[in-house]
Formats: sequence, structure tokens, C-alpha cells
Amino acid sequence: MTAPINRAACAARDAADALAAVRDRFVVPDGVVYLDGNSLGALPQQTPGRIAAAVEQEWGQGLVRSWLDAHWMEAPARVGDKLARFVGAGEGEVVVAESTSVCLFKLLCAALTMQAGRSVVLTEEENFHTDLYVAAAAARISGATMRVVPRARLHDELTDEVAVLLLTHVDYRTGFMHDMPAMSDAAHAVGALAVWDLCHSVGAAPLHLNADGADMAVGCGYKYLNGGPGAPAFLHVRTGLHDALRNPVPGWLGHAEPFAFEQTFRPASGLRSMVTGSPHVLQLVALESGVDLWLDVDMAVVREKSVALTELFIALIEERCAGMGFSLLTPRDPARRGSQVSFRHADGYGVVRALIERGVIGDFRHPDTCRFGFAALYLRHVDVWDAVQAIVEVVGAGAHLDKRWAERAAVT
Amino acid sequence: MTAPINRAACAARDAADALAAVRDRFVVPDGVVYLDGNSLGALPQQTPGRIAAAVEQEWGQGLVRSWLDAHWMEAPARVGDKLARFVGAGEGEVVVAESTSVCLFKLLCAALTMQAGRSVVLTEEENFHTDLYVAAAAARISGATMRVVPRARLHDELTDEVAVLLLTHVDYRTGFMHDMPAMSDAAHAVGALAVWDLCHSVGAAPLHLNADGADMAVGCGYKYLNGGPGAPAFLHVRTGLHDALRNPVPGWLGHAEPFAFEQTFRPASGLRSMVTGSPHVLQLVALESGVDLWLDVDMAVVREKSVALTELFIALIEERCAGMGFSLLTPRDPARRGSQVSFRHADGYGVVRALIERGVIGDFRHPDTCRFGFAALYLRHVDVWDAVQAIVEVVGAGAHLDKRWAERAAVT
Repeated sequence: MTAPINRAACAARDAADALAAVRDRFVVPDGVVYLDGNSLGALPQQTPGRIAAAVEQEWGQGLVRSWLDAHWMEAPARVGDKLARFVGAGEGEVVVAESTSVCLFKLLCAALTMQAGRSVVLTEEENFHTDLYVAAAAARISGATMRVVPRARLHDELTDEVAVLLLTHVDYRTGFMHDMPAMSDAAHAVGALAVWDLCHSVGAAPLHLNADGADMAVGCGYKYLNGGPGAPAFLHVRTGLHDALRNPVPGWLGHAEPFAFEQTFRPASGLRSMVTGSPHVLQLVALESGVDLWLDVDMAVVREKSVALTELFIALIEERCAGMGFSLLTPRDPARRGSQVSFRHADGYGVVRALIERGVIGDFRHPDTCRFGFAALYLRHVDVWDAVQAIVEVVGAGAHLDKRWAERAAVT
Repeated sequence: MTAPINRAACAARDAADALAAVRDRFVVPDGVVYLDGNSLGALPQQTPGRIAAAVEQEWGQGLVRSWLDAHWMEAPARVGDKLARFVGAGEGEVVVAESTSVCLFKLLCAALTMQAGRSVVLTEEENFHTDLYVAAAAARISGATMRVVPRARLHDELTDEVAVLLLTHVDYRTGFMHDMPAMSDAAHAVGALAVWDLCHSVGAAPLHLNADGADMAVGCGYKYLNGGPGAPAFLHVRTGLHDALRNPVPGWLGHAEPFAFEQTFRPASGLRSMVTGSPHVLQLVALESGVDLWLDVDMAVVREKSVALTELFIALIEERCAGMGFSLLTPRDPARRGSQVSFRHADGYGVVRALIERGVIGDFRHPDTCRFGFAALYLRHVDVWDAVQAIVEVVGAGAHLDKRWAERAAVT
């Protein structure tokens, strides 16, 4: 634990922050400390102009010609290739499509088809709920079964019946980050494929998918990537598996010759076969804008700052809010932590609501978790200080016990 | 066939057009006659401002709060309800989600689950290719088989093994429009469900899904609805089937209590259970803008104009391009026609390319089809005249035989 610091010390750290200027590339509303970029990332300054150009010029003036002239058709692969550089994959190993849920469904069905003779999808109880629903659906369709176990039992349950080990890299609730190479290795040791959900890690921590043994992965565009509300997701499959890929929801854009209009599906080579319908062009423009911004920064520097911010937040809460009822849910070891920090609090819903009313935006997860995300591209150390100061004042004054929150908490 | 007319007569018809002012609500590029609104609809004037507000205010300033404050969360159902009014369905019977392909996959899997004991998906060879691919995938997963027959054999092949009759209402290539009530009745007579793909009919012809016996339907947002490139699709299920609906790709937003984060999927009531991942918010804003515009016009008037435009185009081509090698592929009976007209031509690819170079934008479908769409909201009778004039000049001058097109045609 570092020595107690004050706001001036935070400001000094910001003055020395190599990423300080990057904040100016985002819209940060006045009076807001935004600790929910892990749910919906902030708006990059360059994005409105890019979207307006796509709408007014490419759509309005170019019309249907823009599928070729404005390169809409290649957008899923083009943005995928940019993402591949960012997540440690190769060209042609990432493509943008639909939502995380749909991408995960497609990958799991494809993985189970490859792993004929193995019948189990292994995952942990702590996984995000949609992943559990989607995996159960893919397993049922594929004649496989789910094995959902507590995290601590994953190694014991990795038997040679396991077709797929499905893990979310960073836990949406606690911020716990798996050791990707270790878990991938463990999966491979029993012949299972390692499938990773990167929703809470892409942009939160450096990713080296190929080096770390990921066979397949999905991730989301609207959190740390700043791709905007409803940004499409991306999917990754390492090259060695491409030939065995079968898209369970085949569509014409994944056909080897989309404009041949053949009656039977003949998959395109590589990852393009996993594309189903028409790409969401306008959302892709917004996503590409966010991804481009990431490609301008050094992820190692971002990670260093992210760890500094989360360390600072934990230290300040434990020092300044001692005795106020907060208990840390996030791993204390930064190597096991994404870019978020969660504290449990018996009146957590009221704490989060009262903070939002003061412009400090975090979020609440049932039943008692206050979750705060630290998007290093646009957060400062003084923001962390101000957030903790707000918590001190809110809880000190009992604003979190306001009966408005009591009513809502019952519903949540 | 009406008497030969000239451009002045076309202009006179435009002067009397009840929809003339609606054209001003669209961006129509100078020098363009746009006959491809059946592929990508034109940009409504009000859409850029709406998107900019969603990006700059709702996302930029509102951030994650906009899921509630800007009603993003309800957008799929809200826009669905607007569409329901437009397609002759009831409140809660339409929801917006993903792409047509993914929606169709979900509906067909759900339909086959409802129809346990029946093992056949019947459709026609003329169906759009993605529909064939998706249906084959859904059938395989569900233990059913495909029965793909020529259109003329549909009635004979409707046996009591058929679980689902899947038809595209308006043929993407020829513009042929099925008799929805008759075909739905025929399906019901053998106990099959009637599932309709409305991609080329929504906005092209009046729809009365419930009255015409549609059990389920999917449709696309970026064609006549003017929802923009990559607009999400919509799906319809009549209320009587809601209780039996099972989403094959269940996600947290379709859960009865999304924020309870339960480990097992418990479907929401009604059509919300068919939603999977986060809605594509920015594309939904664009789609809603297009749908709102449609709700301001009388579809019966639109249909009347659409028929007038397609009749005019057919008459002018047959009169003024006689002997130039065009043969009509679209039904001559307007009751059996959507809002598009296709002619076959041995050098069709060159015809379409040469026309596009002159600003007359139609499209080509392999191997020899020139396809022209007539979006009645923003096309005029003089546009039809000018398009035919361009065809007369292009083919008259042999511009369609330019060797640039010969090369490309080999690739297509």
C-alpha cells in the first residue's frame, strides 16, 4: 500500500501521464466522472464526423454504389484485421459480426462440430449469464451437455470428455482476470478447445490471443473499444481451425461467391464463412473509429495506467471509507484484475444511485455489488480522487439510504 | 396497354401525384435516377439529424444513462410496434433484431420445435439463397429435412409431413408476388405454419400479416423502409404462438428479468424472449426514422403509384426498346408484382453498368437479369421516362458492349 495521497498528488500524476492528451480525443461531459466505460465507452471526438460522412455522403449520395465505392462490403474483415492487430491475432483471424451472443453461438456450434466424439462444454458458474444460456443452447443443438462448475473446480473438471472450455477472460462482476495461457494450456492438455469471451478484457488489458493459446474468441465493441451503443461484436478463430469451420447460421455473405446465388451453401474460405447477413454498416463506421483510436496508443502504457488507477481507487476507498461498509470483491493482485473494481455494500444500490445523481457514474449489480470501471484513455487520477470524495460525502451524509433507492432496489 | 406517352405526359402525372411532396423528405442526389431503392433505400432528410442527436447527445452526453433516459432498451419493441401497425400485425407481435438471416434462423428453429412430429420444411427453388441456406441449417439442427421444389409444385408438395411452408413474399429476382392469404391457407389446411420473408415486400405492397394468415415473418430494414445500410431486421410472430416460442439463441435481454443475472434462461413473456444480444442502437435510430416517415403516408396511395410506375416502365421498355433484346421477367399482372421490374438481356451486365455510369442506378442479377426497383416515395414518372431514355441511348449506341463490362461480367 502506498502512503496516503491527496488531490494535488493525483493532479501531479496526471501531469506526468503519457496518455493525458488522449483524453482530449473523447467527449467527456461536464460535471461527470465516468466510471462505466466498461459498460458503454465514451464517444471519441472523431466519431460524429465519421458517422455523418457515412450517412450523408456514402449513404445519401453514394447510395447502393457505396457497397463497393465506400468499401462497405469489406468492412467486417477490414475492421476485424485492425482488431486482430490489437488482440494479438493474425490477418484474417478476426471478423466483425452481429452481437457477442450470436457470435458465441456460432463459434460454439462450430467448435462442437470439430470436436465430434467429445460431449461436454465446460464453463464456470461465475460466467456471464448470456454465455451460459448461449452455451446451453449450442450444446443442446449439438448433442453435448453443459458442465457448469465453480471456478475453483475448473482444473479438476477438465477431463477428456471436454470438447470446449469456455471462459470469460475478465469477470463482468468482480473484475477477476483469468490466466489465459495457463487455462488455454490446461484445455489443450486434455484435447479441449479454449474459447474466450473478451467482452471485459479487450481494451482493459493487453491481449495476445495466438501466443496465449486462444482457439476461438468473441468480444464486444461498445465497452472499452468505444464503438458506440449497439456496436457489433467480433469473433476470432485461429487459422489452423479455419478449414474445419462450419457456420451454423450460414448466409449469403459467407458464401464462396455471394453473387452467384447458388441454392446450396458453399462456404467462403477463411473466416468470411462465419459472416451471416449484411453488415451493420453505420455501427461498423462507429466501431472502426474507436478501434482506430486504440491503434494510435501503446497498450502497455494503457495497462500501466489502468493498474495505477485501480490501485489508487482501492487504496483510497479502503483508507477514506474505512468503516463505511465496503468490502473489496476484486482481486487485490493487479495481475488478476481487469480494468474495473467492485466493492460489496449492503446498501450498494443506494450508493450507486446517489453517486449517479452527483455525476459519478458507476453501476450496480444484484444483489450488493458497486462496480466501477477505469477506462484509462479518458480517466484521470483526479477523477478517481473526486469519485472517492463523492462516496465519502454520499455515505457520510446517508444519501445512499434515501427512500427513493429503497423502493427501486426491491425491483432490481 | 395505355397509349404511347411522352415526357410531358409523365410530368403531368407527377404534377397530379398525391405523394409528390414526399420526395422532398428524401435526399436524392443530383443527376441520379435511383432504381435500386429495393436494395438500399434512399436517405430520409430527417435521418442525419436524428442520428447526430443520438450520437452526440444520447451517447456523448448521456452515456450509459441513455439505456433508460433515451429509451434505448425499449427500442427493439418500440420500433417493432410501429412496424406492426405498418404490416398489419398487433402490438407486441413485431420486434427488431439483428439481420434477416439470424431472425429467420431463430423463427424456423422455433417453428420446428412447435411442430414436433412433422419433419419437412417446404420452400421453393426460387427462394432467396440465404433463406435456403438458413432453412437447411435450421432443419438439420431440428432433425427435419428440406423439400425445395419449383414454385409450380408447391401445392402438390404441401403434405401433412410439412411443418413449415417458407416463402419469400416478393421474389428478389423477378418481382413475382405470392398470394399471401391463399398460400397461408394452403399451409394451414395441412397443419403447416406459414412463415413469410418480407424483405422485398415491406414498403413495396400493403401487408396484412394477421388477416392474411402469416404465422411468422421476417423483413429487412434497409430496402423500402429506408433504414440505412445495415439496418437491423424485424421478426413477427402472431400472438397465438407466443407461449410456445423457444429462442434457439437465448440471450440475457430476452430473459424474464435481464438484471437478475440468473444462471438458467427463463424467457420473457411475448416476443421479447426472441431478442438475443444488445440492440444496435444507432442503426435502430436510423430505422425508426425511416419507419416514422412511412407511418405518415397512406400505403394504399403508395401502392397505386407503385403500380403506375411499374406499368409505365414495362410499357415504355416494350414500346421504345422493342427489338433491343429485352424480355420481361416480371409478372404482367400487377396484382402478382412487387414494386420492381426485371428484364432479361443477353448483355444485361453491360446494360446495367453502362446505365450506372450515366446515373441511372439499377442492378444486375446473374446470369442475365436487369433489375429495377420503383420506390414510390421518391420516384417520379419523369424518372421512369428518363431511365428508359437512357436505356434507349445506351443500347442504341452499344455502350453496353464496352469491353470493360465484358471483363467484369466474367467475374460476377
